[in-house]
Amino acid sequence: MSQEIAARNLKLVIAYDGADFSGWQSQPDCNAVQDHLEGALVKIIGSRVVVHGAGRTDAGVHALAQCAHIEVPAGLMTPPQWQSALNGNLPRKIRIMRCLWAHRDFHARFSATGKHYRYTLVDGPVLPPRYLGVAWHVPVRLDVIAMRAALNGMTGEHDFRAFAANRGVTVEDTVRMISQATLRQQGRMMEIDFVGTGFLYKMVRLLTGTAVRCGRGKLKVSEALAMLENPQAKAIHMAPAEGLTLVRVLY
Amino acid sequence: MSQEIAARNLKLVIAYDGADFSGWQSQPDCNAVQDHLEGALVKIIGSRVVVHGAGRTDAGVHALAQCAHIEVPAGLMTPPQWQSALNGNLPRKIRIMRCLWAHRDFHARFSATGKHYRYTLVDGPVLPPRYLGVAWHVPVRLDVIAMRAALNGMTGEHDFRAFAANRGVTVEDTVRMISQATLRQQGRMMEIDFVGTGFLYKMVRLLTGTAVRCGRGKLKVSEALAMLENPQAKAIHMAPAEGLTLVRVLY
Repeated sequence: MSQEIAARNLKLVIAYDGADFSGWQSQPDCNAVQDHLEGALVKIIGSRVVVHGAGRTDAGVHALAQCAHIEVPAGLMTPPQWQSALNGNLPRKIRIMRCLWAHRDFHARFSATGKHYRYTLVDGPVLPPRYLGVAWHVPVRLDVIAMRAALNGMTGEHDFRAFAANRGVTVEDTVRMISQATLRQQGRMMEIDFVGTGFLYKMVRLLTGTAVRCGRGKLKVSEALAMLENPQAKAIHMAPAEGLTLVRVLY
Repeated sequence: MSQEIAARNLKLVIAYDGADFSGWQSQPDCNAVQDHLEGALVKIIGSRVVVHGAGRTDAGVHALAQCAHIEVPAGLMTPPQWQSALNGNLPRKIRIMRCLWAHRDFHARFSATGKHYRYTLVDGPVLPPRYLGVAWHVPVRLDVIAMRAALNGMTGEHDFRAFAANRGVTVEDTVRMISQATLRQQGRMMEIDFVGTGFLYKMVRLLTGTAVRCGRGKLKVSEALAMLENPQAKAIHMAPAEGLTLVRVLY
């Protein structure tokens, strides 16, 4: 008979307010979302469990439904019990929205087929207080038609190397497929929804920053889109983290 | 020749996040929204100016467009300059959204013909972090049909004395007209919009608390509505302040 404890793969759907944390991935200050999750797991089962996330989010970036998987001892608790136990040991600004058993081959990162991000911004002279920390305040009026034209040109399959921040790692394949980049306006608030097979490092913030340059009349739409064709181009206008939300991971 | 300095009536449209302040009306701790506004005015013109608001909001209650009027020296600044000067001397969670000259008879409170409030709540076991401080978390699933029936019965002209908190003041006339009390649902989030000629002290929170009792199946809709006919009735379930927002003052 085996001495091994049977393990099961538990999928977590996690919401967080990015303002309070050092991003998703474990940090020396132990204030990343992953650190809080792993800390809660140590409290619950007394040993270290690695939390595998679908992808990193930077400090300040929010999530409505980040995904992760963990290997947990089978038979210890049901998924709703895991959800309660985790939420009972997490800060209120990190919440497990759902827990469910996943196939043992399910991997939060490698099984993902796409992601949905939303960028929120407010234009005009004054930022309403409810958008503090959850939107980028652009203090001038933006040309929404130009922004929509730029976003429209960004959809489809492109080599997005111009819209990737260098993090000291060379990514071989910088071709990604963006199936949606749509801007919805409500009063002075705008939400841009990006859905795609994958996103390079800081790509959503660089695409948004570039679209906003077009909206400010500082960059022509044709110039923005030419960057997708030019292997030497490098986007330099990055929208701040606080306006970005990971809405959903697609599987 | 008169020594008097000509004064003009300036209307202010003010947004605030209620979580940080002790409500609208001046408090001994000087942390009410009115205190911050009057403090900013002292800094700008060096003397005390009374800020007349359209109505009080309790600690924790938010505003998208509270209104107020102030008497200011004529010719000192234009309305956009007043807006900038005030915003430059206010905490970021209080913003002057608009400033405009008003008729000298305009009074933020007495000229108001109605108000629009919104109550936000989230039902179900887990509160998504983005609703912390801006919604009431009701941890069980609510029966939205029962809630809508209760809200529907509350609209129209009624004597709302059962839905007024006692604040040591006897209000003679407790008849009010609610022209709208509608519930909009989006996922697990609900917004109830109340529009009416006026609201008694804590009336919106008592109406919402009572509708939620119906939604939990703890009170029949007929029992809730019978309170509008019974001069001895007293609503005791009050929704918390943090879910309430003053959306607009009607003139």
